Amino acid sequence: MSAIPVRPPIVKTVDLQTVVDVDGALVIAEAGRHFDFTVRRIFAISDVPARTLRGEHGHKTMNELLICVSGAVEVIATDGVENMTVLLDSPKKGLFIPSGIWLSQRYLRPGTVLLALCDTLYDETDYLRDYEAFLAYRERT
Amino acid sequence: MSAIPVRPPIVKTVDLQTVVDVDGALVIAEAGRHFDFTVRRIFAISDVPARTLRGEHGHKTMNELLICVSGAVEVIATDGVENMTVLLDSPKKGLFIPSGIWLSQRYLRPGTVLLALCDTLYDETDYLRDYEAFLAYRERT
Repeated sequence: MSAIPVRPPIVKTVDLQTVVDVDGALVIAEAGRHFDFTVRRIFAISDVPARTLRGEHGHKTMNELLICVSGAVEVIATDGVENMTVLLDSPKKGLFIPSGIWLSQRYLRPGTVLLALCDTLYDETDYLRDYEAFLAYRERT
Repeated sequence: MSAIPVRPPIVKTVDLQTVVDVDGALVIAEAGRHFDFTVRRIFAISDVPARTLRGEHGHKTMNELLICVSGAVEVIATDGVENMTVLLDSPKKGLFIPSGIWLSQRYLRPGTVLLALCDTLYDETDYLRDYEAFLAYRERT
């Protein structure tokens, strides 16, 4: 038993279930096994030119699970103190993003499709779209 | 007011929200607006060779919303009496599949990604994998 207070990662990779054969690749995410929130909103992003940076915002309360269904995305996350970049280049690896994280995604390949499962409906007041405002929000909470 | 007893369609198209710009295409589905069930399982299918036929099974209780995020899929549905084929060639158009439908999908283009939001966890006993058994099940229920 170690008493070293290791800080948990700011975003968490999740091993998803996949079934791959000659007829295609299937990725599965199930409540209770791969995510533990109620899915109130899903979105999928496609047709992004390679090297495009998207995201660049934070959420006050929204949690989400990202799945790169096809292609590859580099996810860049910070809580204002610690930074993590995670390469999602397989549907096998999901990435759980808790609230309070500033997030960007670099699309790396043509044909990339990124899926997000979110636990809140759209609410513009939940977005932190300015990085300085994000840092100020983190300071306060 | 017409008294003509028009039968509802066996599967139902759902207009989804999309945001398309030079940086990519976003499709959004929200609880209450685009689906009215609890999402317990999602799956996404990619890397399917063009012209491949997938699916070819029914569900006793599972309901699902299909979204063709990228590419094009022809969905072939039957309740054993009536047949419908629906071309999903845009993320704008979702397709709600209630339980008790025998379903196949013909993948039409390379790079096609099909997403399904389901209201049940995986349960092999919910599947009807033989068409004659499906018809017998429909007769009984």
